[in-house]
Amino acid sequence: MLRATNNGDRYELTSPTAMPKAGGFLWNQRMMIQVTCRGYATSQFMQPEPAKYANAPNLEMKTFMQPEQNYYAHHPGRFVYVKDEETGELFSAPFEPVRAKLDRFAFSVGKSDISWTVEKLDIRVEMAFLLPTHDVAELWSIKVTNLSNRERKLSIYPYFPFGYMSWMSQEAEWDEKVGGIVGSGKTPYQKAEDYPKTKFLKDKSYFLCEEKPVSWEAKQKAFEGEGGLHAPSSLKEAQLSNSDARYETPTAIVQYRVTLKANEEKAYRFLFGPALDEAEILDMRKKYLSKEAFAKAAKDYQEYIERGSGCLKIETPDRDLDNFVNNWLPRQMYYHGDVNRLTTDPQTRNYLQDNMGMSFIKPEVARNAILRAVSQQEKTGAMPDGILLAEGAELKYINQVPHTDHCVWLPVALEIYLSETGDYALLDEKITSMHGDTYTVFERFSRAMDWLLSARDHRGLSFIAQGDWCDPMNMVGPKGIGVSGWLTVATAYALNLWAAVCDASGKPDVAAKYRNGAKEVNECANKHLWDGDWYARGITDGGVSFGIKQDKEGRIWLNPQAWSILGGAASTEQIAKMLPQVDEQLSTPYGVLMFAPPYMSMREDVGRVTQKYPGQGENGSVYNHAGAFYVWALYTISQSDRAYTILRQMIPGPSEEDCIQRGQLPVYIPNYYRGGWKLYPRTAGRSSQLFNTGTVSWAYRCLVEGLCGLRGDKEGLWVRPQMPSAWEEMKVTRSFRGATFEVQVKRGEGKEVKIVCDGKTLEEPFIKNVETGKTYEVEVEVPSV
Amino acid sequence: MLRATNNGDRYELTSPTAMPKAGGFLWNQRMMIQVTCRGYATSQFMQPEPAKYANAPNLEMKTFMQPEQNYYAHHPGRFVYVKDEETGELFSAPFEPVRAKLDRFAFSVGKSDISWTVEKLDIRVEMAFLLPTHDVAELWSIKVTNLSNRERKLSIYPYFPFGYMSWMSQEAEWDEKVGGIVGSGKTPYQKAEDYPKTKFLKDKSYFLCEEKPVSWEAKQKAFEGEGGLHAPSSLKEAQLSNSDARYETPTAIVQYRVTLKANEEKAYRFLFGPALDEAEILDMRKKYLSKEAFAKAAKDYQEYIERGSGCLKIETPDRDLDNFVNNWLPRQMYYHGDVNRLTTDPQTRNYLQDNMGMSFIKPEVARNAILRAVSQQEKTGAMPDGILLAEGAELKYINQVPHTDHCVWLPVALEIYLSETGDYALLDEKITSMHGDTYTVFERFSRAMDWLLSARDHRGLSFIAQGDWCDPMNMVGPKGIGVSGWLTVATAYALNLWAAVCDASGKPDVAAKYRNGAKEVNECANKHLWDGDWYARGITDGGVSFGIKQDKEGRIWLNPQAWSILGGAASTEQIAKMLPQVDEQLSTPYGVLMFAPPYMSMREDVGRVTQKYPGQGENGSVYNHAGAFYVWALYTISQSDRAYTILRQMIPGPSEEDCIQRGQLPVYIPNYYRGGWKLYPRTAGRSSQLFNTGTVSWAYRCLVEGLCGLRGDKEGLWVRPQMPSAWEEMKVTRSFRGATFEVQVKRGEGKEVKIVCDGKTLEEPFIKNVETGKTYEVEVEVPSV
Repeated sequence: MLRATNNGDRYELTSPTAMPKAGGFLWNQRMMIQVTCRGYATSQFMQPEPAKYANAPNLEMKTFMQPEQNYYAHHPGRFVYVKDEETGELFSAPFEPVRAKLDRFAFSVGKSDISWTVEKLDIRVEMAFLLPTHDVAELWSIKVTNLSNRERKLSIYPYFPFGYMSWMSQEAEWDEKVGGIVGSGKTPYQKAEDYPKTKFLKDKSYFLCEEKPVSWEAKQKAFEGEGGLHAPSSLKEAQLSNSDARYETPTAIVQYRVTLKANEEKAYRFLFGPALDEAEILDMRKKYLSKEAFAKAAKDYQEYIERGSGCLKIETPDRDLDNFVNNWLPRQMYYHGDVNRLTTDPQTRNYLQDNMGMSFIKPEVARNAILRAVSQQEKTGAMPDGILLAEGAELKYINQVPHTDHCVWLPVALEIYLSETGDYALLDEKITSMHGDTYTVFERFSRAMDWLLSARDHRGLSFIAQGDWCDPMNMVGPKGIGVSGWLTVATAYALNLWAAVCDASGKPDVAAKYRNGAKEVNECANKHLWDGDWYARGITDGGVSFGIKQDKEGRIWLNPQAWSILGGAASTEQIAKMLPQVDEQLSTPYGVLMFAPPYMSMREDVGRVTQKYPGQGENGSVYNHAGAFYVWALYTISQSDRAYTILRQMIPGPSEEDCIQRGQLPVYIPNYYRGGWKLYPRTAGRSSQLFNTGTVSWAYRCLVEGLCGLRGDKEGLWVRPQMPSAWEEMKVTRSFRGATFEVQVKRGEGKEVKIVCDGKTLEEPFIKNVETGKTYEVEVEVPSV
Repeated sequence: MLRATNNGDRYELTSPTAMPKAGGFLWNQRMMIQVTCRGYATSQFMQPEPAKYANAPNLEMKTFMQPEQNYYAHHPGRFVYVKDEETGELFSAPFEPVRAKLDRFAFSVGKSDISWTVEKLDIRVEMAFLLPTHDVAELWSIKVTNLSNRERKLSIYPYFPFGYMSWMSQEAEWDEKVGGIVGSGKTPYQKAEDYPKTKFLKDKSYFLCEEKPVSWEAKQKAFEGEGGLHAPSSLKEAQLSNSDARYETPTAIVQYRVTLKANEEKAYRFLFGPALDEAEILDMRKKYLSKEAFAKAAKDYQEYIERGSGCLKIETPDRDLDNFVNNWLPRQMYYHGDVNRLTTDPQTRNYLQDNMGMSFIKPEVARNAILRAVSQQEKTGAMPDGILLAEGAELKYINQVPHTDHCVWLPVALEIYLSETGDYALLDEKITSMHGDTYTVFERFSRAMDWLLSARDHRGLSFIAQGDWCDPMNMVGPKGIGVSGWLTVATAYALNLWAAVCDASGKPDVAAKYRNGAKEVNECANKHLWDGDWYARGITDGGVSFGIKQDKEGRIWLNPQAWSILGGAASTEQIAKMLPQVDEQLSTPYGVLMFAPPYMSMREDVGRVTQKYPGQGENGSVYNHAGAFYVWALYTISQSDRAYTILRQMIPGPSEEDCIQRGQLPVYIPNYYRGGWKLYPRTAGRSSQLFNTGTVSWAYRCLVEGLCGLRGDKEGLWVRPQMPSAWEEMKVTRSFRGATFEVQVKRGEGKEVKIVCDGKTLEEPFIKNVETGKTYEVEVEVPSV
């Protein structure tokens, strides 16, 4: 039902019903499209705010990308109806809207294209699409093959609905000049001052045909008639009715009539996308709508995707992990760093983490992101809730709610960037901020750390305001009293990370200051937050500790434990108490829970997180971002088996059964899997299908620096792999500062780790003076378990 | 296909396909529901802002009520599937979702209930619903009858989808305690300060069953399976699967299994609505879910609707008009005055006009509305853009855009109120406004008139700012320079109306001041706006006159012509030039256009109106509100044939063909019919299906005071009927100040009008000293044409 092909850089699903929401996604810097195996699609492009060219059938709310999206009959999608002209039989590819029982189905997700092969009535339909690297458009190929040994007369009807375009104005018709169906709408505005923002929006949608069809339909109702989408009335006629839409729901359906000899095939090409006007549509046609242009676009896009293939290739006993790490995880990380989740005001926390992953792909992107972020630092040293990326962008949604953790992510992102590049010169850059003050990057980081030290209460604990990393925890501290247990231990982590950078920059006095700060913060955490076997999640405005033993819901939270390990608050003894509690209370077959038990109703001193559905989103799900922090923490204390287990659970599909339960192909890590697995076992483990998540750069880091143990510092590369105890060997290829490291890890007889680099045994597990262009052969022997 | 029954107080449609969007609506003071003949429904209730208990399948935008709403497979609706257990055959009532070819279909819209009768497979399904008078709930009766002469085994499945309830939290399941399916959601909030507003919202939806079903389904996908809504997989099984929904799209379907002997019938009752919690659901069940309670609710609701039956009954040669005037028009007017379009901040203009209609139904409502409106008058004398009706209400949408016409509607509404009541005491009431100043109503009206006089430019023309009556004309005067031609002549009308009231109040000096003001305004209008054969619509910030002969689009507008007649700007000669231009350029078979030709693209010095779809909404449609102004103007100059023709065109369905083209039952006047009838004949005349419109009180006034000519003044009732020339007679019953006037109008031999009241010939057409409780017999003889 599910198989990896081509060395795992494609995944194929052979049933449209087993995992109905499973799909894949493609993007370029201006657009993103997510398609399901059954043909439903969600696509957005930036102009500069996100917009759509294929819409829901009603006036849909504009919102941030939602998890667990629902599909319904008229959900936007890309479909092809096929009618046997001799028998009148009908089916549709890939599966929706007819849902005929198919003889063969294959949904194939590649890194730079997505395709389907569908067979029914001895007809094969192959659908495939790709994106251009720079423009906003979908390039569709549809090939029909006669599999029978007799001549067949067919009608082929690509159906690409535009949906409800606008309440202001919408229409569609065949446009002979551009050779396609063009839908026109108007983005509405009410206040006169908003009009200029709408004036040059791409309010047209087009469906261009390389070959002229025999008939068409631009009015949704004319297409469906009384038959409905599963059996449209218009398809019972010899020809479509060439109906225009006049302030009626517009759509795009065309008919091709074709006679195919035995085994003959016929290919069609189409372009689907948004445009400002007819001239732009004509340009797009000229640029892309030909066999040659499709081939070139495919090659260009493949190259673009390959530029994001990361710094690590592994060969391990876990082939599924290899596929995911070698192909899919860096691709997802690249997506995050390349398009910033298709928003113009990413949360500062997301922006820094999404870009820190680029350190492993294109370090200059990470560098620029750090510079951009600190250029928006407030005069107090605090970081804003969101980073503005486009002119005229505004802080929206959750970014209008004050959160107190944003400074933490600066040294976190910096650490990874410096480990990969050793580029300490970054710290000397002078940055004049949007608020007019000028400091070096070094000074800005120190100011951010000073702000973290200052934003604490009389007990030395960090204020939470209306939230920290956990966005919707907005009632813990709105009065300015409540504190975050996580943010307190995370502050210590940030201070320690920064102290290490200060040391490496030859500033031991500054380092000492922040190291002492961290020590003091940790002491405060231990005094007020340690609950006997784990750390509390926080203390509310009303002075109520939560995430503690007495709590029946939200009793133990993962983040304070993970970060107390990272930041040094937790002693060895404390860690020894903590880990079994996490195992017992938070681990599930689908990963480790963000907290447990989930809240069953609103807790008014915690806030929105507790209103969310139990086991979904932030309310006690397997929230992978938190899981990834924890895995990294486990690697830092050499808990390699625990780390591997959880890391492995993040990737859907170790087994077919598990994959079906999660409902997702193993081509990305979603932001969460449903929790509540004792409460609601039917839905536990289900994927959110949302691939926007801060998880990915942490997961990649865990693989590179944890599992493979190949971590840089100012002078070179550390080699400290942490294979799971069940493995005998693994092979790693690591790119680092322009050099290639071929690393072979094996279990040996000795009790000590032994490392041989290019034939020479190393005294410490460190390779200095890395030479650009050179390939290092490294053999590592680790003790048997 | 379409017929009036029960003296026209029901309309029946016998095909579900001829007019697919045709429907009816019911309301009470807290909710409104609009249903189509095919079973789709749109319902809203106030808490205090509008909310839904049956939702779209996706995250729908919250917006004002939209015209020309689209329906699609998963649109919210109320349906019943019926399965023959012996043959497995399936159909659904009323028509959706199965869309089976029915043996009989009748959609019957009454004033206080809506019902269907559907026959298929020798089974009759009768569906009917009504509303309680005070609570928010739908009371559904479903009766199934075996029409065959043998025993039948059936499964009956009411299907009432909840839709997408919330991204925060949603679930549903059978709740044994309440005896129904309960869906639970959470209204999302992001800012902590918004939480209290969401806390007590009715976030639960319930579907309660009087009789316990044998099985149920609360998860939409479990119901549909791969079959889709037209052939749900779950209905192929012996029983539904009793699936709960856990953060999955919730729904409500239940199964009854029944064996019916020949001609036997079986009735079911259900309750559908929103609630805060289980206790409230239980209360609703107890209060309403029984045969007796349904009967009582029906009676109460009927009485409630009858209290809105207006002051006029007519018997004319035009039976369709009689039905509409005697039954439907006052009902629609009552709806407007009773619920204020289900908004908490109606536009001032709408609020005053919707309530002025209540003068004919419950004058105290109109009185209170005038008082409430002036209590929100600004300190400058200007009226605000919207009137706040609920605590915490805010000006939203278009009410945040400054318009300059609101003061005009005060004397317009007052005139009708005083004509009906003679209640001049109203003017002496002292009102302290929300801004703290205190004036009598008389003073407040004078201040509003002073403001109108002051808000004019150096030429004496009225500024338009970002719009006047025509909301979206928002770029004519945003710089504070552009003027409105309509508002200028409307200002004169308002001033003259107010002067007449001043006179009647014994204040001739004040009257003279405003009458002189009107004269001066009219002179300015004639100097700057008269274009030779009609008045211009305005002059932009850039000094460009529009609505003039040189214009290719928006060449002639109806409102400046109508109101120049009303306000006295137009001389007899000017009127003689104007009327043929309106006939020629603006009249269509579906009514008179708001302007013509429609704009085909954005005109940046006019604004949003020109961006709307040509012939739709405000862009050159048959906008009935403007048509009604014009009809009233025609009656004031005794153009009774022209007036009747246009009035008659407002009501859909003089012929079946016309009714189908408009796509609406003759049970309300919509806000517009599509224009563009030369450009787009296919869609011209199509109803917006939106029954919120300022048209109705004007149309009613045209009938009462124009066609029937029975208009009050301080001392009594004028009798000046204006029958169309084709009519020989008509009979009118008019309630007025507690008396009843039985008026018989006939054409006679004489050249003068002759009026006999209770056997006495009147010297002038005026009945003084109207006695409460008395019935007057009035015979009117009008000259033959």
